[in-house]
Amino acid sequence: MLGLMQDYPLLVHTVLDHAALNHGEREMVTRSIEGPMRRYNYRDLRVRSLRVAKALQLEGVGIGDRIATMAWNTDRHVETWYGIMGLGAICHTLNPRLFAEQLIYIINHAEDRILFIDLTFVPLAEAIAAHLPTITKYIILTDDEHMPETSLANAVAFETWLDGADADFSWASFDENTAAALCYTSGTTGNPKGVLYSHRSNVLHGLMCNQPDVLGVNSSDNILPIVPMFHANAWALTYAVPTAGASLIMPGAGMDGRSIYELLDTEKVSASAAVPTVWLGLLQHLKENDLELPWLKRVLIGGAACPRMMIETLENKYDVEVIHGWGMTEMSPVGTTGKMKNSTMHLKGEELIKLKLKQGRTPYMVEMKIVDDDGNELPRDGKTAGHLLVRGPAVSSAYYNHDKSILLEGGWFDSGDIAHIDELGYMQITDRDKDVIKSGGEWISSIEIENTAIGCEGIAEAAVIGIAHPKWTERPLLIVVRETGSEVSENEILAYLDGKIAKWWIPEAVEFIDEIPHTATGKIQKMKLREQFGGYRF
Amino acid sequence: MLGLMQDYPLLVHTVLDHAALNHGEREMVTRSIEGPMRRYNYRDLRVRSLRVAKALQLEGVGIGDRIATMAWNTDRHVETWYGIMGLGAICHTLNPRLFAEQLIYIINHAEDRILFIDLTFVPLAEAIAAHLPTITKYIILTDDEHMPETSLANAVAFETWLDGADADFSWASFDENTAAALCYTSGTTGNPKGVLYSHRSNVLHGLMCNQPDVLGVNSSDNILPIVPMFHANAWALTYAVPTAGASLIMPGAGMDGRSIYELLDTEKVSASAAVPTVWLGLLQHLKENDLELPWLKRVLIGGAACPRMMIETLENKYDVEVIHGWGMTEMSPVGTTGKMKNSTMHLKGEELIKLKLKQGRTPYMVEMKIVDDDGNELPRDGKTAGHLLVRGPAVSSAYYNHDKSILLEGGWFDSGDIAHIDELGYMQITDRDKDVIKSGGEWISSIEIENTAIGCEGIAEAAVIGIAHPKWTERPLLIVVRETGSEVSENEILAYLDGKIAKWWIPEAVEFIDEIPHTATGKIQKMKLREQFGGYRF
Repeated sequence: MLGLMQDYPLLVHTVLDHAALNHGEREMVTRSIEGPMRRYNYRDLRVRSLRVAKALQLEGVGIGDRIATMAWNTDRHVETWYGIMGLGAICHTLNPRLFAEQLIYIINHAEDRILFIDLTFVPLAEAIAAHLPTITKYIILTDDEHMPETSLANAVAFETWLDGADADFSWASFDENTAAALCYTSGTTGNPKGVLYSHRSNVLHGLMCNQPDVLGVNSSDNILPIVPMFHANAWALTYAVPTAGASLIMPGAGMDGRSIYELLDTEKVSASAAVPTVWLGLLQHLKENDLELPWLKRVLIGGAACPRMMIETLENKYDVEVIHGWGMTEMSPVGTTGKMKNSTMHLKGEELIKLKLKQGRTPYMVEMKIVDDDGNELPRDGKTAGHLLVRGPAVSSAYYNHDKSILLEGGWFDSGDIAHIDELGYMQITDRDKDVIKSGGEWISSIEIENTAIGCEGIAEAAVIGIAHPKWTERPLLIVVRETGSEVSENEILAYLDGKIAKWWIPEAVEFIDEIPHTATGKIQKMKLREQFGGYRF
Repeated sequence: MLGLMQDYPLLVHTVLDHAALNHGEREMVTRSIEGPMRRYNYRDLRVRSLRVAKALQLEGVGIGDRIATMAWNTDRHVETWYGIMGLGAICHTLNPRLFAEQLIYIINHAEDRILFIDLTFVPLAEAIAAHLPTITKYIILTDDEHMPETSLANAVAFETWLDGADADFSWASFDENTAAALCYTSGTTGNPKGVLYSHRSNVLHGLMCNQPDVLGVNSSDNILPIVPMFHANAWALTYAVPTAGASLIMPGAGMDGRSIYELLDTEKVSASAAVPTVWLGLLQHLKENDLELPWLKRVLIGGAACPRMMIETLENKYDVEVIHGWGMTEMSPVGTTGKMKNSTMHLKGEELIKLKLKQGRTPYMVEMKIVDDDGNELPRDGKTAGHLLVRGPAVSSAYYNHDKSILLEGGWFDSGDIAHIDELGYMQITDRDKDVIKSGGEWISSIEIENTAIGCEGIAEAAVIGIAHPKWTERPLLIVVRETGSEVSENEILAYLDGKIAKWWIPEAVEFIDEIPHTATGKIQKMKLREQFGGYRF
């Protein structure tokens, strides 16, 4: 027997309707690519998004069409985002930091029809345009006055293009499982793979991220999403913030410490979200200029493990709560957040920081477990590490135009991470599964050795890989880039590690190199390191 | 094109799984019907709920079967609730305050198979059992030791019955639109009508109620749901609280000021929800015993308009935030909550109290509008009143076993209330549509006159009805019950009203009676008053 409640599909544009009607006076503030600050409110945002939808419809765009954006977090990007989705088309956010050949692959694989780009990325688009046969139009997110000379075929200024459409348009209505957005993940191996979000998954994920123990956005907040919209939905903030009626402050291309500080201060930002690198830049700017953060109450930090120093400085010196998080593009992306709970509120000092260094716990709608190589569930004891599997309504079941199902038995998605989970549900990533070192039947966390080694004076960067070993299967090799001028030695480093990690985790050897290879998004390419040290013997 | 996210149905028992796994250590505390406090945690709750499901399955209960409960808010009621729903059966909560003939009608209309009852209600069940042919078993929510003598056929103590089932049971899995719970509304006219919630609507509604601007439950909260589970899902708290991992404090049958205070104090309750009557009792107890509320941070007050004095006393004297709310059984039930927002944070004194007296604004997933008699939408100006229509995934589309659709064009549900909405989205109920007085083409709010009149010394209760008038169509008649010993006169009352309400709202006459008729749930029966004053002429 079915319930008798309304058949009311969860569609992302209803979020915008809600914000415009109930929080229409709330501002959206943007540091424009052209320079000056721009400000309007949710009513304006909705009207302009409706116009984008109508203008796209006039271009012949309809349900299921892929429309790409390559843009910073700005008002125009949000209008484009909602306009595309509100028409039932698919908003395909491109990461401009990818290598050109990856972008070409992705755009062709998605068969994008139109590309919206910021002024910043016109040269990049020009360089690859010859390889993009499906793109029939380039809409540059600016006005005629700032329109550059360009070799792009069929290029038009966004504002000019938008002038062709009024707001007399009704959002399309369709099944909530309809695809809404597309975002490719760039793994360390193989071609990028497309994650295809649905309206339902995005709405549910937004509601989840507004729960008090995640980011807990309320209508009095001023939220600064520094994490880009092309980085897995700006961690849900472009949905979660209008859902709550909070103000949306958009940083544009200004990701440096000074620009971020200026927004935090003038816009009285109460919460923000970004990767550790951004906070490093901000902390440096604060220190150099002896500044405070009187408005900022909490920050979500993820994308990479948050360093201890960053947590300590933000919390103790600036009184900003650090919410350490973990997620994946395939998870929309939020998986865990490290808010304190009743049983951890009393923690102080070293115990507190140890908990804060964990990636946190799952909100309702994310299921998580760890399993061994044979798929047996492992205990939640805070020590035993296993393959981290996840499940939920905002977790991928397949990649775009890939036949292969990516789910294990029971519908679990393998995150590719190795982690342990404690009794209270706090999870800590200890490795990528490809990077874990199997020594004598046990696992050694390459990440934990790296994080410890980086504390040793003279080390600029560290990477640990497993090297085949006749007796132990594998043993860890520590690869180090010295800080300029440092002559730190193998013995000094090993002595530093002694007592800080388990004795049997101490690397067999230390090798010094000039540079560690990275992916376009800044991750260490251990595969390349393993190639480089392919014939290595201890 | 559909998105490629997981097909993950929103089922209420996944809430319990989440709570048991991630907040398993959090307590559920109950003032038992037998007397002593009982405490266990979410892990225990889940195990016992699984046992209820298994025991029901052994009784032959399956998907779609209606299983009734007549019980206070206790651990055993929650176990029964989740056990029934986790099997795919429908948990039908009965309001023991209804008249016997209404209960008989409801149970027969729902064709309930089993009735779970608290010790308190055994005499009530015995009195009506002869009229309940579909009930084959009475499970009394106690143990053998406390089992009463009873004439109920097939009566068994809950704990004894539960002993027959272990927890080796897997929740059923099914379409998220499957019916989960049934709750009848008792209108002032006609037979009660059954609202049939689905798993999806209950989960979504729970997530909605945990949003920061609704009740904002977090994992450190200790929540006391005083509003009964038979009163429209305890305002979602039996879903919302485990979703957030907060502790659940259950008051059992102790609804008086002393009992409530004791729980607030010993269990360090941080938030609670109840109708105004309960808070009146608590405030009196606090005053008489010179007590404070050091732990309580916020309360949700709804079910009836919250009196001004109550808001002022709770907020100013006891430093407890009052969240005034409005909803309906047909809305799961939460429709609006009156949290401050960015644009109202600065309000103080009279402006603040005026806003707090409004019923509040809608969270995302509740749509609301006001229309005139012809269905034309009216402006949100805080003055113009109209029929209040609502829409959303947790709003009814039909009643159980009633053929008639109850939705207007566009899928709107008419709340039956008359209200205005201001520019910031705050709604205020001004009347029931049946009670509004149409005078000279304009509407007069009977509720506003009543609320004003009640402030006049000597008036114990007041009701206003419209009386036919040759020139103005209708004019208001004020019906008053004097306080014992008072001799307040018509002229004194009219003089009191002068200047406090619009001149043309001043009642044409005042009539004094000994008693105003009420429904079983305490609402004024204006229909009866209109009958009583049927031949009245000014």
